[in-house]
Amino acid sequence: MPIGGAEDKLGRMTVLREVVKLAGGPQARIVVLSTASSLGDEITHAYLRLFANLGVQDVQGLRPESRTQAADPAIVAAIERSTAVFMTGGNQTKLATLIVGTPVGDAIVRAHRRGAVVAGTSAGASICSLLMVSFGTGGTTPKFRIGQVSQGLGLVRGAIIDQHFTQRNRFGRLLALIAANPGQLGIGIDEDTAAVISPEGRLEVKGRGVVTIFDGADVTTTAYTATGSQPLMISGVKMHTLPRGAVFDLHTRTLVAAPGLSDPGAAPEIATVADVPEGTRPRTRRIAAEGRHETVAELRHRGQRRASS
Amino acid sequence: MPIGGAEDKLGRMTVLREVVKLAGGPQARIVVLSTASSLGDEITHAYLRLFANLGVQDVQGLRPESRTQAADPAIVAAIERSTAVFMTGGNQTKLATLIVGTPVGDAIVRAHRRGAVVAGTSAGASICSLLMVSFGTGGTTPKFRIGQVSQGLGLVRGAIIDQHFTQRNRFGRLLALIAANPGQLGIGIDEDTAAVISPEGRLEVKGRGVVTIFDGADVTTTAYTATGSQPLMISGVKMHTLPRGAVFDLHTRTLVAAPGLSDPGAAPEIATVADVPEGTRPRTRRIAAEGRHETVAELRHRGQRRASS
Repeated sequence: MPIGGAEDKLGRMTVLREVVKLAGGPQARIVVLSTASSLGDEITHAYLRLFANLGVQDVQGLRPESRTQAADPAIVAAIERSTAVFMTGGNQTKLATLIVGTPVGDAIVRAHRRGAVVAGTSAGASICSLLMVSFGTGGTTPKFRIGQVSQGLGLVRGAIIDQHFTQRNRFGRLLALIAANPGQLGIGIDEDTAAVISPEGRLEVKGRGVVTIFDGADVTTTAYTATGSQPLMISGVKMHTLPRGAVFDLHTRTLVAAPGLSDPGAAPEIATVADVPEGTRPRTRRIAAEGRHETVAELRHRGQRRASS
Repeated sequence: MPIGGAEDKLGRMTVLREVVKLAGGPQARIVVLSTASSLGDEITHAYLRLFANLGVQDVQGLRPESRTQAADPAIVAAIERSTAVFMTGGNQTKLATLIVGTPVGDAIVRAHRRGAVVAGTSAGASICSLLMVSFGTGGTTPKFRIGQVSQGLGLVRGAIIDQHFTQRNRFGRLLALIAANPGQLGIGIDEDTAAVISPEGRLEVKGRGVVTIFDGADVTTTAYTATGSQPLMISGVKMHTLPRGAVFDLHTRTLVAAPGLSDPGAAPEIATVADVPEGTRPRTRRIAAEGRHETVAELRHRGQRRASS
């Protein structure tokens, strides 16, 4: 469950509540890994309190600060018994340098395999992918050397995850990385937004912003000839802008569902007079009212009334 | 020839030189239409001087300020005899309100049909399309009501043109408009960048930035259910980021050519020993040197050497 950073900590806390829910609610056992952050105990304590306020009794803060510490059996054991690992924001290169390939890193990978929730915000989101965005610069235009990757935890193997996506305008760097790695999807996650990925590879969007997906499978590019700060030629990237509730299949690379969307794969129906139930009369007031712009709430309300009538 | 605004007026003037070249060079007859601008004579005089400095003797400034003035036979006659119409930046809604459907507007459409160059920068670029972006707000995320269209001149009928594209971050509004008008392409043009469109519908990029193309032909969206400032669900937009030299076919919606790109449609070749010319010896120094990162300039230089040897 990668999160795009800056998840709401004071209001509805939609994203953090989702972590708790998936981790087992009040019975959750959450460990907070704050190695990426430079804020030390401050950030650990903040998340301990937040999860406690959300009803989780069993929550522990871990902060290995070296690869030696990241081999500590007590820390590994805490991860082993957890139902969720939450990785804070900060510096993902520090996080990767200190934990990828260590017993702590391996324990997180095993926790993920046995079905524990592995959530991470900002740096903690980036490290979930195999090819991790380690650093780069902002801007909408893809350019040579705008973004670099290094090895992450590999919980998500077919996609590169980027965060603070529209807020820090990271379109260009993710596009450039997809041009160089067209076998990977690009997943750009906004602040206060999460991409909840199921074991089957279905991504569901939660929170306030959008998840932007770039699919470079059919890309034509000359990115490999670029130098300096030249913009890159990248043709044929397929793009998906997904707000909350949208579900995307990372294997088939297609939209599965979204609020207000009928089954995209269903065959169209052609109605004839024979299909009209006996005794049907046009409800002229309802039909006349259709001209208004209808809000999602109204459509939903109307759907419920219809279902219950 | 829509231009994304802020074309270089002091340095190499790549974009303005292209206008002059296409208009016939020193023999060009250029009219500058400055109705969109609020700067009055200042902007007209600036372009008159610029085109004069680029060697054009015959250049006239036109500034109809009402639909009555836009019916003036002298102004229409000036357009009739021109080899290029250059529309300045400013307020494209003012420009459209005052000239679309007037004798001046019709004269520009006829000039375009007979093969004169119709170039426009910023507002003057927007008005080239049939569905013109009339106003909107910035940001990468497509949202409800982020952009509005009204009728432009219709020189480009199958695409909506937006300008100052990455500089003012207009990704979101163009995506939202493509979701609502999936029959149209979206063409986002950067500052100091031009999209030179041939009569056959081939777009070639000139200048410093990129032209971004959105193709919504296969889009799945629930944009029609959105309200307020909700982000829109738009899945399956095909995107093309095209720097200078790239050529895109607006009818087939595919990349045709780009610097450094071999023919994308050519069949792959499989070489056998029989294909090796007699007496060939490996040029080991050249092969060993291949490991370096090669710049475009180096590749081009090498190609020329090879061609001449």
